[in-house]
Amino acid sequence: MQLFYEPNFDSSATSISINEMESRHISKVLRKSIGESIYLTNGLGICAEGILISNHPKKCKVEVKTIIEEKKPNFRIHIAIAPTKANDRFEWFLEKATEIGIDEITPLLCDHSERRKIKADRYEKVLQTAMKQSLKYRLPLLNPMISFNDLMKSDSDSKKMIAHCEDDTKEKLSGTVNRDNLILIGPEGDFSIDEIKKAIKHEFLPISLSEARLRTETAGIVACHTVNLMRSL
Amino acid sequence: MQLFYEPNFDSSATSISINEMESRHISKVLRKSIGESIYLTNGLGICAEGILISNHPKKCKVEVKTIIEEKKPNFRIHIAIAPTKANDRFEWFLEKATEIGIDEITPLLCDHSERRKIKADRYEKVLQTAMKQSLKYRLPLLNPMISFNDLMKSDSDSKKMIAHCEDDTKEKLSGTVNRDNLILIGPEGDFSIDEIKKAIKHEFLPISLSEARLRTETAGIVACHTVNLMRSL
Repeated sequence: MQLFYEPNFDSSATSISINEMESRHISKVLRKSIGESIYLTNGLGICAEGILISNHPKKCKVEVKTIIEEKKPNFRIHIAIAPTKANDRFEWFLEKATEIGIDEITPLLCDHSERRKIKADRYEKVLQTAMKQSLKYRLPLLNPMISFNDLMKSDSDSKKMIAHCEDDTKEKLSGTVNRDNLILIGPEGDFSIDEIKKAIKHEFLPISLSEARLRTETAGIVACHTVNLMRSL
Repeated sequence: MQLFYEPNFDSSATSISINEMESRHISKVLRKSIGESIYLTNGLGICAEGILISNHPKKCKVEVKTIIEEKKPNFRIHIAIAPTKANDRFEWFLEKATEIGIDEITPLLCDHSERRKIKADRYEKVLQTAMKQSLKYRLPLLNPMISFNDLMKSDSDSKKMIAHCEDDTKEKLSGTVNRDNLILIGPEGDFSIDEIKKAIKHEFLPISLSEARLRTETAGIVACHTVNLMRSL
């Protein structure tokens, strides 16, 4: 089964017009013919199975046969993470987190951040490709980059946690996983002492992810997988 | 703290001669001077802290001050995994598994393998770099590539598990983690039906790693992290 992405339809759709990029792929690359079956997700938990009724290279059209709705998981993961200096490491985090399961990602600008600009369009593509490849029907929400201080000011109903590397008393993430989780992951140089103090003042629980020293992108994946695993036990 | 790798010393060492590659790095790249302190691991669980007594670019020498022995973890992970078609994805698995914690890796040649040759020397370097970067004192053992059938013939005292994607009854890895674990991860096209049957005949327990469809290298990391996490609860 191959999955395509078209955000503009809902569960009531009877026919769906497919965006230019996916249409080109369906018509030019895969050379699909009218009558072939196509699977589309809107990235919001819905998959439409249908028949190709137009294979126009700029605007394919599908007649919907079945609508499948993915049931919402009983937990949420939002990871706010400092993009790594090496861009491919951050894109790798985006791909793996999508495969394993994540709801929301916020690139975080910290005192020790080595990357202060992000490639949001590229990141969106990475998330879309990973969603389709892993046959998921939900596209993780990618927020704009936000400074650590602005994140502190923003409201959140989530259980708030900060994964830092200082030798403080920290709880294991595995023991504190909640229904709705917001986890902060710092840059290569870790969070600054000032940031850690601020986070604690704003009721972020200091956590440790592992006994090992993990790279930023590995910490992001380990946090993501720990929440998924603990919620599935 | 920066860690260097020199396999040829043990806990009785009073002075250590450092191999050419690390010597060049210490002397030429980092320009360390005599008298500076150096941390060396032998990759077998021992770290020596010492003073540089020669910074010769081909043969640095260290006078040992302290020997630190890493206590053995109370569990073992051996992952036999089919190298991915894209080499960087497999090297990424090697790096991340080393960071998270793995004892032994066996590249596996399967019916559906797309990569039939491996770059063992490159892989060794990836493991060494990841070990040093994550300040670990144990280098994972990288075995030569072995065919699925030869692996079936080889003895193992480990709990044997095979992670395949067929819709069969499978146990969750999280519920079956053991003291000593051997986990098989298939190639992009999964294990063949024949391989799955053979494995079951050889008492490999079919397991699932996640509800999601994971790429080969992601499955390897998820398996590795699941064992580490379950053993730490």
